[in-house]
Amino acid sequence: MNQSKLLHDFPVLAQDENGKKLSYLDNAATTQRPVQVLDAVKNFYETENANPYRGVYELAAKATEAHEHARSTVAEFINADHDEVIFTQGTTEGLNLIAYSYGLNFLKDGDEIVISVAEHHSNLVPWQRVAKATGAVLKYMYLDDSGRITDEEIEKKIGSNTRLVAIAQVSNVLGLEAPIEKIVKKAHAVGAVVVMDCAQSLPHIPVDVRKLDVDFAALSGHKIYGPMGIGALYGKKELLEKMPPFLSGGDMIQSVHEQSVTYGEVPRKFEAGTRNVGGEVGLEAAINYVKEIGYDEIIRHEHELIEYAIDQLRDLPYVTIYGEPSDKLRHGVIAFNIDDVHPHDTATILDAEGVAVRAGHHCAQPLMDYLHITACARASFAIYNTKEDVDALIRGIKNVRRYMGFGD
Amino acid sequence: MNQSKLLHDFPVLAQDENGKKLSYLDNAATTQRPVQVLDAVKNFYETENANPYRGVYELAAKATEAHEHARSTVAEFINADHDEVIFTQGTTEGLNLIAYSYGLNFLKDGDEIVISVAEHHSNLVPWQRVAKATGAVLKYMYLDDSGRITDEEIEKKIGSNTRLVAIAQVSNVLGLEAPIEKIVKKAHAVGAVVVMDCAQSLPHIPVDVRKLDVDFAALSGHKIYGPMGIGALYGKKELLEKMPPFLSGGDMIQSVHEQSVTYGEVPRKFEAGTRNVGGEVGLEAAINYVKEIGYDEIIRHEHELIEYAIDQLRDLPYVTIYGEPSDKLRHGVIAFNIDDVHPHDTATILDAEGVAVRAGHHCAQPLMDYLHITACARASFAIYNTKEDVDALIRGIKNVRRYMGFGD
Repeated sequence: MNQSKLLHDFPVLAQDENGKKLSYLDNAATTQRPVQVLDAVKNFYETENANPYRGVYELAAKATEAHEHARSTVAEFINADHDEVIFTQGTTEGLNLIAYSYGLNFLKDGDEIVISVAEHHSNLVPWQRVAKATGAVLKYMYLDDSGRITDEEIEKKIGSNTRLVAIAQVSNVLGLEAPIEKIVKKAHAVGAVVVMDCAQSLPHIPVDVRKLDVDFAALSGHKIYGPMGIGALYGKKELLEKMPPFLSGGDMIQSVHEQSVTYGEVPRKFEAGTRNVGGEVGLEAAINYVKEIGYDEIIRHEHELIEYAIDQLRDLPYVTIYGEPSDKLRHGVIAFNIDDVHPHDTATILDAEGVAVRAGHHCAQPLMDYLHITACARASFAIYNTKEDVDALIRGIKNVRRYMGFGD
Repeated sequence: MNQSKLLHDFPVLAQDENGKKLSYLDNAATTQRPVQVLDAVKNFYETENANPYRGVYELAAKATEAHEHARSTVAEFINADHDEVIFTQGTTEGLNLIAYSYGLNFLKDGDEIVISVAEHHSNLVPWQRVAKATGAVLKYMYLDDSGRITDEEIEKKIGSNTRLVAIAQVSNVLGLEAPIEKIVKKAHAVGAVVVMDCAQSLPHIPVDVRKLDVDFAALSGHKIYGPMGIGALYGKKELLEKMPPFLSGGDMIQSVHEQSVTYGEVPRKFEAGTRNVGGEVGLEAAINYVKEIGYDEIIRHEHELIEYAIDQLRDLPYVTIYGEPSDKLRHGVIAFNIDDVHPHDTATILDAEGVAVRAGHHCAQPLMDYLHITACARASFAIYNTKEDVDALIRGIKNVRRYMGFGD
């Protein structure tokens, strides 16, 4: 990882006028964007901006080309077909789209929805609501002491009544990769579809929807160095075709009469209203940025940082790490608590030391309940983080204990 | 209007290397963005980017402040309270939010939804779907020969069964302003709520939701010089409070347990998932840009252009203008056809002449049916347009006739 290039690409991370450098370790909440992404968005607006599909003039043709080119880039990146990629605002909208359009229409009383107890609220509350509306039952796969979903748990919870399984590929709290292939195999054996939330995985590991054979997958641009307000949803074409649209409006129709409507083809059926082409172009630039570095290098670098951090954290007897610390399938995230210190105090003191971590329930309250905590601190990593950031984190944690009156 | 400043602010409109200047007259589809908006977005990402509400560190506090400051700017701009403004992707999402969250929950069999025949599909298809799902009846207010909704039509269509009226403040095809105050008065008298689509009005005239007393109002950033992918929805607080959330996920909850959830307060109840703060900051910059010019000047300038265009179009016997040409309540839009020329040919030939207009049904097929046409051309204006753009349009229209073999 060429750190001087990275610092040039991400000016927000450079030293400020007081020589203070931010150690930004809240990348699981949102990443920073490289100038390449910001410039791509600006360039679109300055040279290609128009409403795609809505004009025959040259600028509109350029905007349409930019829109579909970005879709191709996303599709190729996750190994999907071009028409299987729907642009969304982000993972939350993608998951809600499936809940409304698939869940409410294809689930019924007595069916079972299976999720894990580690799900982010965005992959949990929509399924609570689908269950309530349809009479389906929401069941949870629990974790073993190391934070993993075991084969036994998969066998026990996914059964003949299961119609939908929704699962994060990587937990936003534990950082552990779920056994997606095993879950998909079992789910498909009982005739259930699998919805994968890859908001927290895609920044760290390659996602191949075809190889994993998931039925739907949702991602967010802002977690992978792209702009806020843009994301994508993958769906197998035969499923997308039988689902009714979610949002209705311009561009998603074939024809409209006063009392009737016929809808357009997939994926446009699911893309109502003016598209966020600026955001799409930014997401495309972010994907190209990640591809240029390459996942091999990203994994090597981030795992090095994680191991470097965990080795030191394990030496601190007052630090609890959630999820088996030595797990090789940990990606990008270390959630922890300091004995007798509230995580908000931890984060506040770390902030004063120039280290940004998040504290709270991380939109995963059922997991907090399961872990018997109300909150925790979380350090999360990205390509631009360095061993110096980890050093600042460890130094900060030691200071937290000291400031809170526990001595060295 | 300081044209040289405007051309500096909107570089996409400047002459290209071949000395060709674009006359961009498709502003009703999407406007161009001034450098002030693009710079504001870039500046946010470079100096304040974090996930609002999700961190206690300084950068997250800055992002939260940017998010709520943008909300205040939108609220003040349309004369709403801060908490009555929900950020959306755009008008389409805003209208769908009302359809799903209000329409599906508060309308029932036999209730009536009233819209106008001039509605954009985004303010029409969602109501068809609500009607189908609830058993409500979708009724249309038709237009008189001048393109207006008459007092008689309001009296005739809005009645004791009406529970919701959805209406564009300005039609995206006819450009005519609807009699909102009369519609609101009648609707409220029968106990119906009024949803106003101000996508096409806000760029041209001030919108005061409190004075108009509408119950909901939806707007899009990209139609008023802001970025794509951001918009806002206004709703009266007592209505928003009794509505269930639309999208579910992070940030919109108070607490989540395995089988239950309690939702946050309005407006956050309707803002699930990571917010598009970059877009919000861009929308705020666009509003500030419009405020600096001032609506008095915008109206003066745009009406001057419209009159200048219409005066010349009326001299062309082969041009039909839709909606009373001399209507003083025409804002920003002239829809027209050229005898015996398909509007797509019109737009294609105009494009070759450097004039971008849109041709098609303009996402308003029921209006096309009502006008007994399948499509039309549309020239739509913005603050940066000039009399030279109108001259280019008129010259181009004359050439269309010539190229299509009708002589001069």
